[in-house]
This record gives sequence, structure tokens and C-alpha cells, in this order.
Amino acid sequence: MNTFGTLFRLTTFGESHGPAVGGVIDGMPSGIPVDLPMLQQEMARRRPGQSALTTARAEADQVELLSGIFEGVTTGCPIGFIVHNSDQHSSDYESLRHLYRPSHADFTYQQKYGLRDHRGGGRSSARETLSRCVGGAFAKMALSRRGIAIHAYTSQVGSIALEPYRGQYNLNLTETNPVRCPDPDIALQMEELIRRVKAEGDTIGGTITGVITGLPVGLGEPVFGRLGASLAAAMMSINAAKGFDYGQGFLGSTQRGSKQNDAFGLDEAGNVTTLSNNSGGIQGGISNGHEIYFRVAFKPVATLLRPQPTVTTDGSETTFSAHGRHDPCVLPRAVPIVEAMAAMVILDHYLINRASTDF
Amino acid sequence: MNTFGTLFRLTTFGESHGPAVGGVIDGMPSGIPVDLPMLQQEMARRRPGQSALTTARAEADQVELLSGIFEGVTTGCPIGFIVHNSDQHSSDYESLRHLYRPSHADFTYQQKYGLRDHRGGGRSSARETLSRCVGGAFAKMALSRRGIAIHAYTSQVGSIALEPYRGQYNLNLTETNPVRCPDPDIALQMEELIRRVKAEGDTIGGTITGVITGLPVGLGEPVFGRLGASLAAAMMSINAAKGFDYGQGFLGSTQRGSKQNDAFGLDEAGNVTTLSNNSGGIQGGISNGHEIYFRVAFKPVATLLRPQPTVTTDGSETTFSAHGRHDPCVLPRAVPIVEAMAAMVILDHYLINRASTDF
Amino acid sequence: MNTFGTLFRLTTFGESHGPAVGGVIDGMPSGIPVDLPMLQQEMARRRPGQSALTTARAEADQVELLSGIFEGVTTGCPIGFIVHNSDQHSSDYESLRHLYRPSHADFTYQQKYGLRDHRGGGRSSARETLSRCVGGAFAKMALSRRGIAIHAYTSQVGSIALEPYRGQYNLNLTETNPVRCPDPDIALQMEELIRRVKAEGDTIGGTITGVITGLPVGLGEPVFGRLGASLAAAMMSINAAKGFDYGQGFLGSTQRGSKQNDAFGLDEAGNVTTLSNNSGGIQGGISNGHEIYFRVAFKPVATLLRPQPTVTTDGSETTFSAHGRHDPCVLPRAVPIVEAMAAMVILDHYLINRASTDF
Amino acid sequence: MNTFGTLFRLTTFGESHGPAVGGVIDGMPSGIPVDLPMLQQEMARRRPGQSALTTARAEADQVELLSGIFEGVTTGCPIGFIVHNSDQHSSDYESLRHLYRPSHADFTYQQKYGLRDHRGGGRSSARETLSRCVGGAFAKMALSRRGIAIHAYTSQVGSIALEPYRGQYNLNLTETNPVRCPDPDIALQMEELIRRVKAEGDTIGGTITGVITGLPVGLGEPVFGRLGASLAAAMMSINAAKGFDYGQGFLGSTQRGSKQNDAFGLDEAGNVTTLSNNSGGIQGGISNGHEIYFRVAFKPVATLLRPQPTVTTDGSETTFSAHGRHDPCVLPRAVPIVEAMAAMVILDHYLINRASTDF
Repeated sequence: MNTFGTLFRLTTFGESHGPAVGGVIDGMPSGIPVDLPMLQQEMARRRPGQSALTTARAEADQVELLSGIFEGVTTGCPIGFIVHNSDQHSSDYESLRHLYRPSHADFTYQQKYGLRDHRGGGRSSARETLSRCVGGAFAKMALSRRGIAIHAYTSQVGSIALEPYRGQYNLNLTETNPVRCPDPDIALQMEELIRRVKAEGDTIGGTITGVITGLPVGLGEPVFGRLGASLAAAMMSINAAKGFDYGQGFLGSTQRGSKQNDAFGLDEAGNVTTLSNNSGGIQGGISNGHEIYFRVAFKPVATLLRPQPTVTTDGSETTFSAHGRHDPCVLPRAVPIVEAMAAMVILDHYLINRASTDF
Repeated sequence: MNTFGTLFRLTTFGESHGPAVGGVIDGMPSGIPVDLPMLQQEMARRRPGQSALTTARAEADQVELLSGIFEGVTTGCPIGFIVHNSDQHSSDYESLRHLYRPSHADFTYQQKYGLRDHRGGGRSSARETLSRCVGGAFAKMALSRRGIAIHAYTSQVGSIALEPYRGQYNLNLTETNPVRCPDPDIALQMEELIRRVKAEGDTIGGTITGVITGLPVGLGEPVFGRLGASLAAAMMSINAAKGFDYGQGFLGSTQRGSKQNDAFGLDEAGNVTTLSNNSGGIQGGISNGHEIYFRVAFKPVATLLRPQPTVTTDGSETTFSAHGRHDPCVLPRAVPIVEAMAAMVILDHYLINRASTDF
Repeated sequence: MNTFGTLFRLTTFGESHGPAVGGVIDGMPSGIPVDLPMLQQEMARRRPGQSALTTARAEADQVELLSGIFEGVTTGCPIGFIVHNSDQHSSDYESLRHLYRPSHADFTYQQKYGLRDHRGGGRSSARETLSRCVGGAFAKMALSRRGIAIHAYTSQVGSIALEPYRGQYNLNLTETNPVRCPDPDIALQMEELIRRVKAEGDTIGGTITGVITGLPVGLGEPVFGRLGASLAAAMMSINAAKGFDYGQGFLGSTQRGSKQNDAFGLDEAGNVTTLSNNSGGIQGGISNGHEIYFRVAFKPVATLLRPQPTVTTDGSETTFSAHGRHDPCVLPRAVPIVEAMAAMVILDHYLINRASTDF
Repeated sequence: MNTFGTLFRLTTFGESHGPAVGGVIDGMPSGIPVDLPMLQQEMARRRPGQSALTTARAEADQVELLSGIFEGVTTGCPIGFIVHNSDQHSSDYESLRHLYRPSHADFTYQQKYGLRDHRGGGRSSARETLSRCVGGAFAKMALSRRGIAIHAYTSQVGSIALEPYRGQYNLNLTETNPVRCPDPDIALQMEELIRRVKAEGDTIGGTITGVITGLPVGLGEPVFGRLGASLAAAMMSINAAKGFDYGQGFLGSTQRGSKQNDAFGLDEAGNVTTLSNNSGGIQGGISNGHEIYFRVAFKPVATLLRPQPTVTTDGSETTFSAHGRHDPCVLPRAVPIVEAMAAMVILDHYLINRASTDF
């Protein structure tokens, strides 16, 4: 199940310590100029080693585009791509061959498949998400022609949080700090927390908020293709994601209908619209023209720089001590991944809706 | 997109005030005795009018099974079924034809499709979920042969909540009270709250917790078919669902790795296992043999028994006042729906995993 | 695998002697007026007992539409439908419970599923195709708005054949004779052959030719969604179909490129077009604007009105003698089924192409 | 639509003159040793320049496996692979930029997508089938563990033909001659015909017969996943394929039921079996344990080494003369492609059937 989407589809492959990761983008509309700097910028955003907050591994992550593009424009044919794994130290991982790292996928992969590539998590490594950022970059190229924009930002680290649901942040500030939080003051607090956690050899979780603007009314296919369901599946397929909500989400579940309901009224142009947006831009599974906003909860990184008790594959008790280059907090680097998944979901639904609308 | 699943698939159809709702279950394994009393019991659990807490509509909801069963046993052929809509008062809804009810799907359906069946919400009515309960009942019949059980219960109504994440409740008590909460004392408080909200013409949201036991290791297909992603899509396709998390979910996102990680150890039989279950039974997207637990957040019911301002389809301002039979709280009746969706996800993944395991 | 299609999808259920057959049409564009007389006419064309050439069973085949239509127009929601099985004589089939009819699906169903509904072939009965005609009728309703027409006719019975590939027949004559052959003289010969075969208690095979006109350029999704591949899958899913070709097909495979190639030139309006149509309207898997024509080969009906040796389910040798009402030739009644499958394929590809074209 | 299959899936990408072709194999069972020599041998069978009968292009076609394999064994994770396009002479194709080659996909791609990679056919080039041979090789590795073998051979070139339906050929002889025909005498005649056609600057069509042995009873998913339908879709997705039939196919459609029916009897071990195999190993869409045999019709290669009239993209009349390295007959090189597609279909159905059998 390494393919995602219905009309716009991404298929990914690759382990962290194999020769390369990569994928195939299928269903990309033809005639779209390929924005290579933007693509490479998305890679850079996901890359390790951007700041002291993230792992120091220096991966080049140069995307090679192998097909589906002709003279700088998409052709409608599938876009194959690979990124070589240049920074491999497979021997570093030999000690993990017969050991289950706590809260990693080592045990479940071993049991499900009967064997596993133990080096750096193999297929379960977050390096796989690199391919999603490539797919998301192409989706963004198409969506931007329709005025649809996708933003995400770190909205919580540990207990330091922005307003739990969409407040009025200046999203242009997101990229001005290493945690990718649009509130500079809160960002500093988050940074400080991450540094402190890192110094203790520990890790910390948090949430990312996504915001989608410029959507037309009508995306989403009831009943099982509800837009919220598609976004949920996309987000929950990201490594370490443990929760998703949109609109007022879990907070709204504590409230009354009289507070939550979005009354209809008329906008300045006299068009029907909702006067509030507690629904988060989706009603009955279909976009209503308002901003979609959602949250994704990430558990703390499982790799700690301190000893943890565990067992070996043959059932002996042992201790696992990671060392070296690991993120104390996945949030900053997960921001572009959340955006990428959202972009692919929205483009897919855009195409599906376009197929039948005003037939 | 009215089909759900890969190998075990449910396709549903039907509006609340058309002749019938129903569906087709495809991929049901052959040779499973059909437990009709259980099936009808699941219908009864979802049915309106079970208690003073839920709407008083008396729908018979008698399922007619039309195919795929021979002499009481499934044949492996698709199971078509219908439930007639017996309690229709279409004329009651004439006033809704040209009006957008707040926080309903009226507006988005009208815009997406250019027309809509306005009677009782049409396709967007929660009556559609009846077909899911049929699908879920068959999935449960298959799963029970493998020792897999699916339970759900109301874990929060407004601000009255059980422990936010899986506590040690006696799930046999869930069905002993009308809110379907396994803690009788909390259940009473929830009931009291719902009555009070109802008396005020208002509604209230809440959360349902699902628990899956008896799972083998190995269900879930990385990367996009991660078990958490499949469950998320299933739950977020339910009417009024706005959030999903599993394991320690949003709570865990505030914590440190040293607290969240599940250390591996040996169970009494000497087998490798995790010594805690913060992961909620899923690691790397694959079931690890522990109990899966998850939450679904439901917004408050949008239909209030009090006047709300809104607009008509031609943009005139008006007031909408619902009256009569409506749930003040969707939670109790959503419990069997959550179970049904979970059962279908798990059976589908069970079959997918079975296809390739130990090839 | 009882669902067919990507955006326009038909799911079918039902056995020949269960309560009903039926299905769900999903992805039907909204706003299409439902042509009930046409729908019922398509049912009548497939129905047994239309002439002395076909089985005398008098099935009413009245379609009940259960959803997806509001005030005579499609809503974009799934269209559920059932047709009750009124003419059941299940007891007639008791003798078949423990017997494998030659060249039927009795043996393979029994082995695959461990049990089977033996009455009249159960799920493997051609009665299932009734649901396809419902799906096809709705597809035709949508396609006709775009000027796309689907025709099929009997092109061969035994060795009596029209030109093997698309000749210039007046398709308006197809429905003027019971074999549905557009050449009245050949039709008489076919009729005569079928009567003779029937009198001998035997059956006879043949071919149906399909013709699709009014297509725009651009339908078909290389590489695996080539239009010819989709049509092939559709046709080969029909009971008793054993072969498919399009354009010059098998005949063209005996020829040279210099004879087969379709040279490009200009039409009267000065547009680029092929000057011949050996390709059958599809090049590189994509419609080129010309007429698509294809053939489907049907084996002779397996049920003979003469004794045949066979074995019982427990391995004893016996003799099977069918009696009563059986088609000596499936061709006339298969014509509407071929059209239905073609219509669904074309609408599905029309929608898929529309999703991305001129993005 | 560049993905094929349900549980065993191949996604391909690449144009003939881009940097590389390649793909992703998803759903490969874990624990299968990778037979690299066999894989490379399958590449060699498809490669141009094997004999005087095929094009002289010397493509290395070295497959790079990028993931999904660990220490020589499949891991159950997706297998990414690429093959670099080493023998590119893009400038040779500049003359084709504004010209539609007769019976190629130039026109339809240009119209559908608004642009195209004109070099060597771009995506519509048969070079894409290289990726299918990689997928097929892995499928064969899995199937061989179950005793299932896939063979194909050239059964007709122009009018020189083996018995139209499965005769008793020694399939070990297929690879002993350059046309891949198991009858050495007929092979010589085919060779002679191809040489003569080539000398005249012309091309010739033909048929390939596929044979699948060692199948268990039960593969195939009625009604739309009938095994014959899946094979048809697979074969008709191959470049230049124009027809498909299985069992007695088109020939059987001229016959009577009394001749075509396969009577049931007992084999030497006392098991129920059919005493003949006119059905071609499939009944009711499900394998019956006998050999599956089928034919694929290929049109003559469209590229002739003689001038052909055509038009340019702006509608001017011109003449197209190909020169250099082109196959006069696609059959010999298509044999491994037919095998590859068959292998993938069978493995996919094997897995699907395994999911539910004896649940």
C-alpha cells in the first residue's frame, strides 16, 4: 500500500540505507511549468541539519526527475524521481540487527515480514517522507494556478502552544524561525524547550496546524470520500502522527450546538456564506469555500540519547543507547510533510470534483 | 465514493426519505454462519427512539438480506441488503427546500451538485450509517471466529469525561445505561447533562472511545495503509466526526519520549512484548498484538430546538426553527457506528495481511 | 470484485434464485433527467422470452430505483436499485445440488467457496447482467448529452457472419429482427440456424460487434488504462465471453504494416484526421475521434437439452439432462449487455479525462 | 493510470528518451530470494538487437534495484527500480517534433495532453514494457515457489501459424530460435517471412500464445474480476495488442455447445476434473486447475522503412520516412512481455484468493 490517491497518485519506495528513495507521481495534469527552485526548497525544508534543533546529518537530497517532464513542462505522463542516499553509515547500525528499539517499528516489521532492513529503520524511516515532499511540490504547482495555497506551522511543542484552533497568525512568519511557528515569541519558547529537552537526552512531541486557503466550494466526495476523512488518512499516514482533528475538533466536542453552529448569512458581495467557521471549511464532507484548518498530533521522537531497556530478537534483555544525530523534536521538519500530504489530497479532490461538476 | 475498503468492501446508498437505504457487502469470506439476531441487535443499537436521550422516531429498521447467503451461511458472493424507510413525513420538510440549515450539508450539497434532496438531509442524513452497521455486523461475524472483538463506548459528553485515554473499564457495563458509558456513575452525570441540554433546546458534543482486542501482530500496510490511517479515515467518514486519535494521541503530543516510549520486555510466556501500551497497539503502522484504543470526537448535533438565523437559497435572511424529534446528543447512537467502521477496517486488513503472510 | 469502474462505478449483487438482484451506481453526474422508458426498454431487450429464439421464462424485470434521484433528476448520490426475482422455481433445481453441470461454474464455485447456491447457477447466472443493463442505461443517459452513442449487434452466429470487421451497416435495422443483426438477410439465416440448433437440443456461439460514435479525442489513460484494455476487461467480464478484439484485431495480425497503417490527412474542415480507421478509433490507448468498433466472442450456451455425462459432487458418474427454458444462443440477449458495459467504460473514461484536460 | 494490480501492483514511469525508465513493485511477498540472473535474462529476452529479426539498437538494459531487498531476499517493502536510457540519439528525432507518424500515438498524445515528448514515441514507446518485465520477473519468482509456470511463444506471424489454439508443443523449444516458436519448422518459415517483409521495408503482425500451468482451482474473482477479464486487460495494455481470446475463443464462437462443452469425469486419482479443456482452464471466471491458454493479437509494427504520406502538427501534408533500427515484427520481443503481464495477473489473483480461502 505504497500508493496514495485516486486520480493524483503518489507511489513511494525506498529505505533509509538502501541506494535511493523515490517514487512515481501519476495523474499530474499536463502543461504545468515545473518550478524546480520551489521543489528543491521543499526538499531543503524537510532536510535534516537545518538548525541546531534538528539532526546534524547533512543529506544533499538532490531530486533527480526521470520522466513526465518535457522542456520544463509536465506532460501528463508519470513523473519518476529518485534521491540517492548519500550519507550512509550502514555499519553504524549493525548493533541494531538483533535488537528492538523501543517504540520503533523494528518489532512489528520483523513479525509481519519475517525479516527487516534494520539499518536506520529501513522502510519505516522518516526518510520515506522525502518522496511525499516531491509529490506535494508538484501538487502545489498545480494548485497555485487555481489560487489554492497550503500552509502548515508548528502550533504546539510539549505544553507550549498557540491557540489550540486556528487563530489569526501571520503565516509569513512561519519560516522566520527554526521551529516554524508563526508567533515569534512563542517560537522562542518552543526553541528553548527543545534545547532543554535535547540537553537531557530526551525528546518532545507537539502538534502541527495546517491551513488551506482559496478553495472553491464542492471538494469532497460523500460518504467515504469526505474531505475530512481524506485529510485524516493522509495525515495519519505520516510517521509519528497519532491524532488529527479539523475545525474545532476535540475542543468543539466539549461544546454545545448553540456555540458551535456556523450561521449562514451574506458576505459583502451578497453571496451566501457562513458567518463563522467553527466547521473548519468542511460541511457534510464537502468544502464550503472557507479556510480549512486542522491539527496533527505527533508523539515525541522515539530515539532517545539515553539508555533504555529493551530485548533482542531472540528474547534476551539488553539496553539500547542511541547516540549521534537524532531530532529531539520532529515538528519543525514535519511541517513541510504535512503541507505535502494536504496538497496531494486537495489536488486529488479537485480533479475528482472537476470530473463531474456541471456535466 | 460510496465504497469503503480494499478486499472487504461496503458500498452504501440511500437517502433518509427515499424508498430505502441499503448497500452491498463485497469480499465477505464464505462459510460464515449468519448471526441474524446479532445483526438485528446492531440495528437496534443504532436505532432512534431507544431512550429519552435519543430521538423518538420509531424506525423499524428491518434489514432485508437479498443475496450472498445460502441456507444460513455466507457464500463469498456479495451481500445486497435494504432497509425500507418506513417513517417518512416528507411534507414536514417542505419548509427546508429553500433554506440552508446551519452547520448542515444543505449548502455544500446544493453548490456541489446543483440540486439536493432536502428532505431530512437526504444523503447527508445519519440514516446512511445504518448500512454501515450492517456491514460492521458481518465483519464482526468473521472477526469473532478469530477471537477479535470490537468495543466502543461514550467516553465524554461535554466536559464530563472518563480518563481521556484508555482506562480500565468493565466494557460489559457499556450497554447497561442509555449513554453507553462503562462507568455507571459517570454515565448518570452524562445523562443528566444531556437532559439539561435538551430541555434548553440545545445539543452537546462528546467523544467515543473504541477498543479492539485479540488482534494478531501484523495488521496494517505501510506506508499509506498504516492501520492508524485506515482507522482515521473510517472514523472521520462518520457524520459529525471532527477528530481522531489513538494511543496517547493528543495527550501524548505534550509529553516527552522518555515517558511515552513503550519498552520491550518478555511476557509470562517468554515472548517479546511491550511492557506498556502508550502506542495504542500500533507501531510503524502495524498492529503489535496489544489492544488498540482510539477516540473519535463528535461535534454537537447541528439541529437545535430553538430559532437560529440563516438564509434561503435565494439569499434572503430568515429564521430556522427545528421542532419535533431530534437527538440532543449523537454519542449513544454513534457507539455502534464506530464499532461497525472499526470492524470493517480490521477485517479488511486481516484479509490483506493474510494474503501475503508466510507466502 | 463486484465493483466496476473508477469514477463511474457499478457494484452488483444477487443470485438468480435469491430474493432479488440489484446494485449501486456511484459517480453518476448530477442534474441528468432520468429516462425511465429508456431504462425499462433496456431491461426488455435483455429479458428472456422476447422471441422464440430465447428462453421462454417470463421475467418482469421491473427495476425499483431506491435512491440518487430527486424529482426525476439524478442528484450525484449513489443510485441503489433492485429487481425482484419473481419467476423462481427453486425446487426445479434440487437435482443440481450435488451435480456439476458441464462447462458451468458449479465446480469452480464449489471449490473456491466451499459451498454454492446451486439454484440456476446462483451468482454465476447471467441474471446478474441485468444489473449491468441498469448501470449502462444511466451511463447512456449521460453520454447522450455529449453526443456519444453506443450500438451493438449480432455479427456472427456459428459460421454465419457479417463482414468480420466493421462494415457499413444500417444500425437502425438492428432491432428489427430477433437476432439483432443489422443485415436483414443475414439475420434470417442466423434465425434459421438457431432454430435448427435448438431443435437438435444443441446450442451455438457467435460474436457481437460494438460501435461507439461521437467520441472526442482523448479518452483513455496510458499505460494500463488504455481504452482498449478497459473495453477488453469490461467485455470479458460478461458471462460466456471468450474473446475480444478491436479495430482490425485478429485479422489485422495477419497483415502487413503497409496495409494496416492509417495515414493522416485533413478532413473537409481542414482538421487532422486519419484517412482510414483500421485502428478502430484508438491509437496509443487513446481515442482519436473516429468510431470505435470491437468484437466479443461468445462460446455456445453450456446448457444443452440433451443428456450429457458428468459427475456428482461426491465423484459418482451420472448424466445431466436439462429441460425446459434455456437459450439456444446467447447472442441476441447479450447485445444490450455489451452496450451497457461499453457505455459504462466510456463514461468512466470521459469523466477521468475531463478531470485533467485543460487544467 | 500507470499502476496495475490490486494486491501485487506495478507502477511504471519513463519515456524512451528521458534519463531512465523504471517503476515500483508493491505487494511482493517477503522472504523470496531474488533471482538476479533470471531477472537479467528476462531483460535480455525483451532487449532489442537479439537477432537479425529485431532492431539492432544495443541497449544495455541493466536493472538497478533500489529498495525492497535486503541481503538478497525480498522484504515485503516496495521494490523501486530504474533502467537508464543509455542509447539516446534525441537529435535523430527532431524531424518528428512537428509530424504525426501514421498509426502511432503522436496525434492522440498531442491532443490529449496539449504537448508531447516526440522523441522515439516518448511515453508511448514500447520501451515502457521493460518495466513490466521487471515486475513479471518478480512475480515469477513468487509463483515458481508454488509450482506455477508461465510460458508464451509466437504462434502466428502473418499467415504462418501454429494450430490456432493450444496444441501439444514442446515449450522447451521456444527459446531455441529467434522467433520464439516452439515448432522449429514453422519457426524457420516465420523467420523467412520476417526477413522478406523487412527487405521490403514493411512490417508484419501476428499472435502470441500464453500458457499457464500448475494453477490451483479457485483463482479469479467474479464478477468483474473474472480471471479472463483480468488477463484480457493485462494483455490489451501491451503496445500494439489488438485482440485477446482464451480457451477456444473466437474459434469456439463458431461451434456448438455439444462440441465445446467440457464434460466432468474423474482423473486417475479419482478427483473430479474436466475430460477436455476447451474452456481454457477458466470456468465462471475461476481457474479450474487445468492449463490456461490464451492468444494475443498484435498489429504489424507501425514504423515502416518506406515513405508514408502524413501531415504535420500544423496541418501541412508531408512524407514520413523512417530509417535505421526498427523491428519488422514485434512478436519475438513481445513474448517475454506477455509472460510478464500474465505472471503479474496470476500472482495478484493468487494473493487475493489466498486472503479469503478457508477463512
